[in-house]
Order: sequence, then C-alpha cells, then structure tokens
Amino acid sequence: MSVADDLLDLRRDLHRHPEPAWREFYTTARLVDELEKRPLDALYVGPEVLADERRGVPDEDELDAWLARARDAGAREDVLDRLTGGYTGLVAVLEQGPGPTVGVRVDIDALPITEADDPSHRPAADGFRSENEGFMHACGHDAHATVGIGVIDAILESDFSGTLKVFFQPSEETVSGGEPMAKGGHLDDVDYLLALHVGLDHPTGEVVAGVDGFLAVRHFRAEFSGASAHAGGHPERGRNAVQAMAAAIQNLYSIPRNHDGATRVNAGLVGGGTASNIVPEEAFIEGEVRGETTDLMEYMDDHAQRILRTAADMHDCEVSVTGGGRAPSGESDDELAAVVGAVAEATPGVDSVLDTDSLGGSEDATYLMRHVQERGGLASFVCIGTDHPGGHHTPTFDVDEETIRIAIDVFGETIERLGREAV
Amino acid sequence: MSVADDLLDLRRDLHRHPEPAWREFYTTARLVDELEKRPLDALYVGPEVLADERRGVPDEDELDAWLARARDAGAREDVLDRLTGGYTGLVAVLEQGPGPTVGVRVDIDALPITEADDPSHRPAADGFRSENEGFMHACGHDAHATVGIGVIDAILESDFSGTLKVFFQPSEETVSGGEPMAKGGHLDDVDYLLALHVGLDHPTGEVVAGVDGFLAVRHFRAEFSGASAHAGGHPERGRNAVQAMAAAIQNLYSIPRNHDGATRVNAGLVGGGTASNIVPEEAFIEGEVRGETTDLMEYMDDHAQRILRTAADMHDCEVSVTGGGRAPSGESDDELAAVVGAVAEATPGVDSVLDTDSLGGSEDATYLMRHVQERGGLASFVCIGTDHPGGHHTPTFDVDEETIRIAIDVFGETIERLGREAV
Amino acid sequence: MSVADDLLDLRRDLHRHPEPAWREFYTTARLVDELEKRPLDALYVGPEVLADERRGVPDEDELDAWLARARDAGAREDVLDRLTGGYTGLVAVLEQGPGPTVGVRVDIDALPITEADDPSHRPAADGFRSENEGFMHACGHDAHATVGIGVIDAILESDFSGTLKVFFQPSEETVSGGEPMAKGGHLDDVDYLLALHVGLDHPTGEVVAGVDGFLAVRHFRAEFSGASAHAGGHPERGRNAVQAMAAAIQNLYSIPRNHDGATRVNAGLVGGGTASNIVPEEAFIEGEVRGETTDLMEYMDDHAQRILRTAADMHDCEVSVTGGGRAPSGESDDELAAVVGAVAEATPGVDSVLDTDSLGGSEDATYLMRHVQERGGLASFVCIGTDHPGGHHTPTFDVDEETIRIAIDVFGETIERLGREAV
Amino acid sequence: MSVADDLLDLRRDLHRHPEPAWREFYTTARLVDELEKRPLDALYVGPEVLADERRGVPDEDELDAWLARARDAGAREDVLDRLTGGYTGLVAVLEQGPGPTVGVRVDIDALPITEADDPSHRPAADGFRSENEGFMHACGHDAHATVGIGVIDAILESDFSGTLKVFFQPSEETVSGGEPMAKGGHLDDVDYLLALHVGLDHPTGEVVAGVDGFLAVRHFRAEFSGASAHAGGHPERGRNAVQAMAAAIQNLYSIPRNHDGATRVNAGLVGGGTASNIVPEEAFIEGEVRGETTDLMEYMDDHAQRILRTAADMHDCEVSVTGGGRAPSGESDDELAAVVGAVAEATPGVDSVLDTDSLGGSEDATYLMRHVQERGGLASFVCIGTDHPGGHHTPTFDVDEETIRIAIDVFGETIERLGREAV
Repeated sequence: MSVADDLLDLRRDLHRHPEPAWREFYTTARLVDELEKRPLDALYVGPEVLADERRGVPDEDELDAWLARARDAGAREDVLDRLTGGYTGLVAVLEQGPGPTVGVRVDIDALPITEADDPSHRPAADGFRSENEGFMHACGHDAHATVGIGVIDAILESDFSGTLKVFFQPSEETVSGGEPMAKGGHLDDVDYLLALHVGLDHPTGEVVAGVDGFLAVRHFRAEFSGASAHAGGHPERGRNAVQAMAAAIQNLYSIPRNHDGATRVNAGLVGGGTASNIVPEEAFIEGEVRGETTDLMEYMDDHAQRILRTAADMHDCEVSVTGGGRAPSGESDDELAAVVGAVAEATPGVDSVLDTDSLGGSEDATYLMRHVQERGGLASFVCIGTDHPGGHHTPTFDVDEETIRIAIDVFGETIERLGREAV
Repeated sequence: MSVADDLLDLRRDLHRHPEPAWREFYTTARLVDELEKRPLDALYVGPEVLADERRGVPDEDELDAWLARARDAGAREDVLDRLTGGYTGLVAVLEQGPGPTVGVRVDIDALPITEADDPSHRPAADGFRSENEGFMHACGHDAHATVGIGVIDAILESDFSGTLKVFFQPSEETVSGGEPMAKGGHLDDVDYLLALHVGLDHPTGEVVAGVDGFLAVRHFRAEFSGASAHAGGHPERGRNAVQAMAAAIQNLYSIPRNHDGATRVNAGLVGGGTASNIVPEEAFIEGEVRGETTDLMEYMDDHAQRILRTAADMHDCEVSVTGGGRAPSGESDDELAAVVGAVAEATPGVDSVLDTDSLGGSEDATYLMRHVQERGGLASFVCIGTDHPGGHHTPTFDVDEETIRIAIDVFGETIERLGREAV
Repeated sequence: MSVADDLLDLRRDLHRHPEPAWREFYTTARLVDELEKRPLDALYVGPEVLADERRGVPDEDELDAWLARARDAGAREDVLDRLTGGYTGLVAVLEQGPGPTVGVRVDIDALPITEADDPSHRPAADGFRSENEGFMHACGHDAHATVGIGVIDAILESDFSGTLKVFFQPSEETVSGGEPMAKGGHLDDVDYLLALHVGLDHPTGEVVAGVDGFLAVRHFRAEFSGASAHAGGHPERGRNAVQAMAAAIQNLYSIPRNHDGATRVNAGLVGGGTASNIVPEEAFIEGEVRGETTDLMEYMDDHAQRILRTAADMHDCEVSVTGGGRAPSGESDDELAAVVGAVAEATPGVDSVLDTDSLGGSEDATYLMRHVQERGGLASFVCIGTDHPGGHHTPTFDVDEETIRIAIDVFGETIERLGREAV
Repeated sequence: MSVADDLLDLRRDLHRHPEPAWREFYTTARLVDELEKRPLDALYVGPEVLADERRGVPDEDELDAWLARARDAGAREDVLDRLTGGYTGLVAVLEQGPGPTVGVRVDIDALPITEADDPSHRPAADGFRSENEGFMHACGHDAHATVGIGVIDAILESDFSGTLKVFFQPSEETVSGGEPMAKGGHLDDVDYLLALHVGLDHPTGEVVAGVDGFLAVRHFRAEFSGASAHAGGHPERGRNAVQAMAAAIQNLYSIPRNHDGATRVNAGLVGGGTASNIVPEEAFIEGEVRGETTDLMEYMDDHAQRILRTAADMHDCEVSVTGGGRAPSGESDDELAAVVGAVAEATPGVDSVLDTDSLGGSEDATYLMRHVQERGGLASFVCIGTDHPGGHHTPTFDVDEETIRIAIDVFGETIERLGREAV
C-alpha cells in the first residue's frame, strides 16, 4: 500500500529535470529507459506518435540548447536522435488478450517557474529541487508520468484482458500537444480513455470520477510594428506600436459578455519599445480567449482578432497575429465516470468520491477525449486529490506522493473492470 | 589641416569599446592614458568630479560585468580602482597664466544599439566596429571625447593666457550625468563654457554657433503591481497590472497640449505579465515628459504622475514611480556664440555658419550651462556639422572624421580669443 | 372563453395613455374608476401603498406636466389630488372569509418609446395607438393591469375563501417601484404571491409556471465636472470631463469576468460638452451593473464605483455618482409554481406548460417576492405567453388579447386552489 | 468724440436680437434698413455676396423658425425674401473717386449661450438683454456690425478718394461664412483689407495693429451606429456605438505632438445611447482639429479621420464623418499694420498700441485675408481693445461702447491715409 521505490525515484528524477513544451527530451528518454525494462508489446516515440502539424515549437537554437542539457543530464543519445525537431512524447502498448482497448493519458511537460528553495519546500529539503533553474514541475506532471508507468506495472500483474495504451503527452501547458497526439493515429481504436490530473484543490483521499467544465481556449500572439522616431525631436514621425498595443488591451477586456455562457480573455504577457526617448516601433501581446463552449470561445476570438487589427490600424501600425495552442471544451461520459467512482469508493485511502466537478480552466486532454467520443468510445477525466502546499503554478507547489499509489490503484482496478464488462 | 594620427587612433579605439551610462570604465581609463602624456596641471577622476547624488546607476552585478570587460580590453587597473561604484568621467586642467577660465564639455557614453555589420558601414569595413556587441557609439561621443583631447593639444601650442578645463562627462544619453558633474565643484569658477555636439543633421562644413531650443526632460519608471490569478479559473481574483498599464499609456499621450509651448510625452519601454493564462501581477512603463521650458516639463510631469497613480487605482493596483535622468531647458548666450561664429567663419573647411538653430531634443549640458550662467558666466552649445550616413541613434550612424579637425580648430581658436579679450 | 368587453376597453384605453415611471396619474385614476365599480373591502392609493424612500422621482415641473396631461385626458381630480409628488400605484383588497392571503402583483408603467404608426401595427390600425407621443406600452403592462382587474372579477364569482390583494405597482421599467411597494406594509401578511408577465418570447398558449434567473441590477448616474476652456487658445486650462467619461466607459466594460456566474455592465446613456471649440466642463454616464446573484451585482458595483471615481481623478475632474433603481436576484418557489403549472395544464387555450425558464434580465418583482419569502410565504413569477409581433421594448410590440383571458383563468383558478389547500 | 446716438441704438437693437450662423435674418434686414439711409453706390445681399457651397446650413424647419422670429421682430418682408435658404450677410459699396479699393470685414452672427440676467450685467440692467432666449452676442459681433456702419459714415464725411467695400459676414462662430464670402466675387479687386475684432483680453484704449497666430481649424461631426440589444439579456447581440465613441475620444487626444508647431484637438460635444439597460446603437462626436499652419491642421485631420474610422470598426460599428466649418492659418501684413498702428497712436482715447499679438485661436477672416493677399493685396486683422466684464463666449460678456467710437476713428482715418498714399 505504498509507492514502489523505483517509481518514487522516477518521480523525483523527473522533478529534478523539468522541461517545457516540445523540449521534454530528458523526460522522454528517461521514460523510454523505464519502459524498456517492462515486457511491452510496442513502444512508439516522437514522430511516431504525433501528427505533423504542431503549434508553438521553439526555434532550432532553443531546441538544441535543451537537447544539450538533456545529454548532459545523461539522456540516451539513441533516443534523443529520434526526437529531432522537438518531437517529444511517447505511447506504450500492452496487449493482454481479447477485450477492449483502454487508453490512459498522462502529460509530461513543466512550467517556466522558478522553484522555491526553502527548507519548508520538500523537494528543496530532500534534494530533488529543479536542476533546470527557472523551470519547475509546478503542476504535478512528474507524478502523472510516474502513474503512467505504475499503471503498466499494475496491469502486468492483473487479470486484465484487452489492450492497454498509455499516452505520455508533451506540451499540455501550452495546450499544443493534445491536438497532434489526438491525430497521431494511436487513439483511433481506443474504446475507453482515462485522463489523469492530481490535485486541483482536492485533498489527498478525494477523487473526482469525471471532471467537466473545460473551457475551450485559444492562445494568440500579436506583434505590432510601426516606426520609431525621436520622442523629443520628431514624435510625429513615429507610428507608435505601444499606443496600438494599449488600445488593443483596453478593448480586448471589454468584449461584450455573452448570454450563452462564460467567456474569458487575457493579455497575459505584453511588452514594447526600447528606451524612454524613442517612439516605440515594436510591441506584442501574448493572450488567450476562452469560452464555456467552443462556440463561445470562437465568439471571443472573432472579436479579439478584429480588435487587434483595428488597434494597429488606429495608430497607423501593422499587426501580425499568430495562433498558439488551443483546446475545445469537453465533457466526461457519465457511464465511464460511474465505473471510476465505484472503484474509487473501494480503494484504500480514498475517503471522498465526487461524481463530477467543474475544472473552470482548460486542458487539451479534450482533444483526445473528443477523438475517442466521436468514434463511439467513452472518456473520463479523473482527478485524484493530493494535498498541495502551494497552489498549482506557484513556486511552492508539491504533491503528496501517497497520491501516486492511489492513482495507480484506481486506474489499474478500473481498467481491469473495463476488461471484464462493457460499459 | 588633418587630424593627428594619435587622435584618429583614439577615436577608433573608443568606437571599438562603446560603454553605456555609468559604465564608461575602459573609456575613462583610456582617456587617462592619453592625458597623462600631456603636461597637465591637474587631472581629476570619478568621485573627484561628480556630486554624490546620481540617478540610474546600475546594480553592482552589472557594474562588475562592465569592469571585467574593461579589464579584459586592457584598461589600467589603478584607474579602474578609482572608478568603483560607477563613478566614471574626468576633468583635465591646464593653467596658462592670468586670464579667464574656459570650460569645454564633451560627453563620453554610448548607446544600447547593435552596430551595423555591413561593408558599406565604414567602422565595419575598416575594422573598428563595436566589440561590445549590442552597444554602439551611435551619437558621436567617441568623436566628442577625441576633440576634448585635441583641444588640449591646440591650447598647449597656442598663446592662450588663462585656464582651460575640459569636462569629460559620463551618462549624457540617460540625461543623468550632467547634474552631478555640474554640482561637482570644478565648474564653479568657469567664465565661459563651450559644449560640443557633432552632426545633428548639419553636414560637414556647417557650424551652428549657439544651439537653442533644448527641451527640458524628465525620465520616469512606473512599476505597477496587482495580484495574479488563473485567467480561466478565477479572473475576478486578479488585480490586473497590465490593464492599469494600458490605461496609463492611453491617458499619458492625451495630456492636454499647452498654449505656452511645445510639450512631449512618451511611454518608450513597457512590459508586463508572465504567460497567456495568468492575470498579470506586474507591469512597468519607462517613459519621459518634456517641455519647451522647465515649467512646461513640470506641467507634463504633474499630469503624468496623476495619471500613473489613478490608472493603478482604477484597476485596484499599486504603483511606484521613480524619477530617472533629467535636464532643464537652456539657451546659448548670444555674445559668446558671436565669438564662436566669427572664429568659425575664418576656419578652413567651414563654408556655412548659422547663428543659432533649435535642437528640438534634450541634453543635460543644460545643467552645466545654467550653472555657469547663474554665476555670471556665459555658455554656448556649439554644433560642428558632420556628414553622417545614418541618423543619430541608428545602427549606421558614423562621423566624417574631418569634423574632428574642424571642431578642434574652432574650439581652440575661440578659446585663444577669449583669453585675449573679454566678451 | 373570451375577454369581457369592459376589460378589452380598459386595456385599450390604458394603451392609449401610456405613462412612464412615477407619472402613472391617468392610469391610477382610471383603475380607481374601475375598482370602485367592484364590491371591494379596501382600496389604497399612492402614499398609502408606498414607503417614503423612492428613487428616480422626476422634478416637480415634470410631474406637473404629466398631471396636466392626465387631467386633460379626463382623470378624476379627487384621485389626482391623492397622488401628489408622484405617489402612483394602488392596492385593492377583497376579503372572502377565512383562509390564506394571496397577493397578485401587476405593474402599470410604460416606456419612452415612440409607437409604430403603421397599418400593420394593430393598435394603429384599430385606433388605440398611444396618444402620449414618444411613450408607449411596449412591454404589456397595459395587459398586466387589466389582468389585475380581471382576477378580482374572477374571484368575486368564485368560491375562494381567504383574502386577495392585488398590487398595481408603478415604476417597474426603472426598477424603482418594487422596493417602496415591498416596504409599504400591505405585503407583510401575504402567504402566497403571484407575479405576472406576458410574452417574454413565449407564444400564446404557453405558460411558464415559475420563472427564475433574475439578474440583480443597480442603475447609476455619474456626473463628471471639470473646467471649460477655449480648445484652441488654452487647452491646458481645461479639466476635460469628456476625457474622464471616455476613460470610465472604456474601463467599465473591462471589469474582470467572474468565476461565480454571469455579470453585466452597460453605459447606456452618455453625453458631455457644449461645442466643438470648448474643452468640455460637464459629462455624464447613466449605466447599470448586473449579476446572476446579488453578490455578483455588488462585485460589479464595487468595481464600477472605483472606476468612475478614478477616471474623474485621472483627468483632474470631480464626479458625483447617484444610485438609481435596483433589484435583487430572485427565485420562484417550486411548490407554488407546481400549483400554477397544474392549473395551467387544465386551462383551455394552454397547450404547453414549462416548469421554469430563465428571465435573463431584471425585474423588481424580486423585492416583493423576497419580502414574502423572508416572512415564510411562497412566491412565483408566472409568464403567460403571448404572440407578440415585435420584441419587447420595440415600437411594434403588441399583445394577443386572448392572453388576457388565459392569464385571468390561470391566476383565478390557482388562487381558488390555494384557498382550498395549503401548499 | 462719442458714438452717434443712432449707432448706439443700432448696437443695442442688434444685441437684443442675436441670431446664430446662417440665421442672421433680422440682423441682415436691420442693416439693410440702416444702409438704405446712406447714399451708397451699391448694396448686395445674401446670394449676391456668397458662393454657393456653404457648410453647416441648418435644415428648412430650423431656418423657417428663425425667419418667423425675424418677421415677428419687425424685419422687412422684402429683404427676408432675398435671404431664402439662409443666404445671410451683405456687402455695401461706396465709390469716392480714383484710388485704391479698401475692404472692411465685420462679422454679424451670435452664439448659443444664455445671456446673464443680473443687474450687474449692463444689457440686463439697461433693457437690451437678448430677446432670443438661449442665444447671445457674447463675442461683440453686434459692435462689429455697428462699426461697419460707422465707418461708412466716417468715409462719407472724409476726403477719402477710392472705393470702400464693407463686408458684413455671417457665420463666423462656426467658421463657415468666411469661405463662401471670400469666393463670392466682391473681394477680387480689394487692395487693402482691414478685419476687425474688439476685446480679446485687450482693455479699452489698447489697439493691436496686426494680429497674427491664427490656428487653422476644421470642425467635424462623427456619427457612430451599431445595433442595440438588451444589456441584461443579450449583450452579445449589441454593437456598441458608445464603446466606439469612447475609444475614439481616448485616441483622438493622443495624436502625436508635432515638431513643426502647435496642434490642437477637441471632442467638444458628445453623446450616445438611450437608456441604462440598452446597449447603445447610436453615438456622436462633434469635434475639431487645429494647427499652427494649415499643414499641421491637415496632419491632425488625417489622424483624426483614421481614428474615427478604426474606432467604429473596432466595435463592429459604422461611422459617418462630415466636415463642418473650417479656416486656414493666416498672417497680417506688417506694412499695412504699420499704417494702422501709426493712425492708432494719434487717435484720442488710445493709450497703448501693439504692433502684433497672437490670437491663439481661429477666425475665418483668414479666408478673406488670403484671398486678398494671393491677388497681391495687403490685409491686417486689427484688434480694438475693450473692457469686457466677462470673458468672450461667457454669459456676462459685454463691450465698453466707447470702443465703437475708437474703432470707427482708427478704421476711418486708416482708410483715408490708404487713399492718399500707397503702402
């Protein structure tokens, strides 16, 4: 009833090596190491698991720097070779006789956050704080990846009849990995998909059988360009990109609310100009729009695109808007969630099971869930609670490692049941 | 009738080693080397020439990095030791008998601009392009410093009776070096002050005897802080510093025009936030206000301060506004300019002399000029035209080196005359 | 099974004489005429039915003008005398033995809309178009008032045992009549309250037994004042109230969305300034905030108040914000709605009964409903569908008069049942 | 040395009957009455003095209302018949032998300001306060028109040899009468043009011989239209014209300042929407741009047009922008002003003569001045000081009537001199 030592080691090793979107080189190689110790039927890596069209892939210099870092940390060269171009992530397959194909989806990327370095922060106290300064597993994906391995172990030891596929997805934080993995082919024959998240303000011992309320989301980057000028000598010669940016920001937040449901907009990262005395030539906004439904998100996006364009035009500037990551809205299937809930009720260490709860955020697991649902399968997004000292996406976030054991138990037993009886 | 070889070498050496405000370590040391070759009566360096209160001095790490760079480039350790804390700049004194004290002011700092690297750009073609990548002498201060040395040579060879003081001022580009140098004591007994600038869109052969129309200026940095929140989950928990910043920008540019004369405002460098999906907690504006008179600049500053404060309050944020560099308005004295003009008319290579012209920008030479004028002395800001291929503050700026010779001739001969007859 | 002729006449007479908030003089007098024909136990008018504190009452000149208009249209002088100060509205009481006290709430005011004058608009074709040009019963309150009378007739003819009180409420359109009527005393002993609305996009034959989803609302009027100045000569002497107003508008619409539910904001009527060449001294915004709950409305109001204040301050202006009408959110009681629903199912002409539907707007009936509910009573807001050619609040709105009959039947029969058996 | 009684009566009669732009019906007829008493050589009225293309002419209903008012005040029917369509204004011609043609330009329209009604306001105390409530001669044009008549009297009694033309120009306050009068033909042969203004903050006894510093100006009216919607129910269905208007206002004031000289912008009269709970469908801005030169005004106008267009587009609205009155910049000719100044020095009651002063505002006399100057003539805009208790364009403005006498003397004597010797 505790986590196997090798899994604990794995989780902490991943925690020490956080890698952001499309740069999960060490992570992928480390998982290959682990998986090759297991009697798998198939293991697909990088380009074999992702559709070609990907958003937000960094440039070659940036990729090379992270490749070098992974190599320095001991990643296997032969695996790294297969990940060229930032094709990270993998899919492990276990065939155990006739029966349904069950998919498990875990995500593996980290965040651009500097981890706390304080004795009260356990990874710092126990020596597994991030070694990639400025980056951190602040959302539990290190635990998610570990559960992915643990579930394989559980199924290997079980009577499950059917096929298990574990999807180790890259680039969830930028909502850009879900779409290419959903289109990568390996999901096409999946009958049941279980996606995992730990925490989300639920304590250790609480399980949400089927999370709902995913907001559809689209990221964008707008680059404004005008003309610089000496701000004292010839302000009239400038075409001020910062004024365009400011007009856009003010009006983005004022897109009308919508009768049909919740909408969101944010200009989350902005900047422009070069010096106090120069009329700014360049400025940018990285932002996002969301909606309770994909239609509502599109409504926001239509307005945002128009506002970005006209704000540039208003100040005689140009603007180039490129789309970033995105995800549709989504829902867990009640029938599948019911199985998870029933299993959780019987799992040691679980003392509270909620049928459902609203995420109130976005997740590109929805791409995988919809892919399965559109082909007649069922999907559920399962939350395994964990006591986390700091909030998600903060420097003091950490997981209660007991959660890893509970997650493996709930997922393993659910998969066994799905092998026994169709939902 | 051409520039001495050692001065040409000096100008190009300085051009190869551009250093920004308060970091002119190599430059100061190199000038000490040159000056110690001359029979000076006194040479004051760093803390000996600057009042204590200085604006915009970088932090210690930044200063150390530039010290190291200066050392690597061959700067003398004993001089660097005297510049600790970013006390750059120097004053050279030559006493040649009874007579007036004449000051010459040149500035020595460079800009954060990446120099062009193209065969058509002469410093690149002839091998003296910037070796401090990202920084550049794009405003001719390398030539100014060289003229400072050349004028000493000219006076040494002349019949001038009186005292010459050459002020090598740091940090003009951030308008922060003028005030501490004006208050540093060495200017108190100066009867005539000649300040130099090359170019300013005047071609080689043209001289402006007394530039006017300096805009008073004040730089500021406003730091907005609110509270971050998940932009999808709980936007209402955020206090959005980027919204505050955008409201400030929009309203800063709309401060009412003023009947009494020209005013300016610019939000030249702005930024905020961390990621698309986070309500921004921090944002900043680096900007400036200007006025045709110091009163007009104060008028703009009063409005700007109120707008920054209320924009923060509007979005439930805090703001901290700190002042940066500054300079008052200023005027050249006609009587002194008349002497310069008369000398220039007779100088070989000069084919056009303008009594005056408007700068239309700002310069902290005005601090030195006012200091002299308030004590009964006279001051003139002299422009020696130069053919410059690119505009000031652009990557292709360069000076026609013939200008250095003309400047030395005009300044040297003017100083001689001032020794002969009071104005 | 059709509307009594006298009620039809009444509805059309009211339609010809639309009167806006606190100016329902003719309407009140006309209803007194009708009610005095019935054997009532009590009839309370004006100050007898309203608490003293009222919002948005027009000034004396405006009230006098409408009093004169009512007089010209034939309103009884003795009734008008009792309405001095704009105390319009009335309460009729019928005591029919032991049993519960049932309240019926109808509203009686009209809108500042110019009625269509086209043969395809039935009131125009049949000669009962508005005679108060610029005002119109464009929301069916003429029908509501008529149903109030009709229900009294129905109860007089019925076996109902208990007390019936019909509340003819003024000033619903400005959400300012509900609060003083709720606090007027007559509602204190009401056990069941039925509020009526016709239409709301439901066709004739459809009934909603208990409407929900009332948005809490608060109106405000912000008056900005600065200082005028000649826009050409001395713009710097102005303190521009229109700039303050514009900054407020832009930022009001950008109040952050809220995780807890729907919010709304609108700057619905704005203005400022006097002429092109004068810096504007005065400006105003009439606006409103709403929320799915009263807390959410308060959240919006807090932000709005701060934005109005800081926008004024930003442009060195003053602002005075006064509250206008308001209403809390509210909910119908399911138990009471169930009775209405059951009655409606059995009512001739009704072919569709919905348990509930969301209003998506605001209504100050919520003040009366809450007053009853807080004292242990039950309340339901009942919608009787009607085919309406134009939308609510448009010049071509009209009601299908058959609806009046259905409403009387549903309300009358429900009241009888409530007399027979407690809910 | 005092004003003739008939002229005093005229001034006060005009003051009692103030009429705004293109509605100077009574004024024109009253002046015809006066002029027909003098032995003129020609008198041209309305369409005979104005080019066809006029801006800002009110609609027929408005014109008819003012025609009726003029008729009621006793205006001659035969003159009113000649002014149909708002062709107001007149030109009087006096031929007195060989010599130059001298033009005098006075303006005759009033302002939409309610006159003070207080014993300390002399027109109120002495019974000649405005009888057209809401309108007022608050800029002295009643005195200007009177001086026009007085100068004719002075020339009739003088030895002037040459031709005198007095231009009584309508619609100066809206800067729309100057252009059509300049193009009306009567100015083509004018050798010297003297334009008159009283006051301008100069006291009685002070004369400015040649005013300069006219700002070029252009008025505009922007009408935004979107779509209304219920602000609570369906805000997303609205296209908010008030949001468009607010974005335009904020950005109009932030058009970059210009190196080449003073610029101005003002949104002087704005409005929009209908009620708190309706998303506004309509909004408007009446504004103006100005520049120290016509080019600078055009610079501002180009930016303003773009901002109005893009602000509408930003909020999915349409905008229609129509031009209003306008005037170019202008300058008085020094040679002509020198004559005026010399005459003024010798005029009894004048104790201070300024060669020039800056208007700092706009005046469409510049159209007439340029027309003369472009044909080789000279023009000067002369200010005759007057003690005015309230500022121009305020309810307590009044003129010291002694000023009328001084103006007549200065203009009459100047004209005589111009007849004697060419400038």
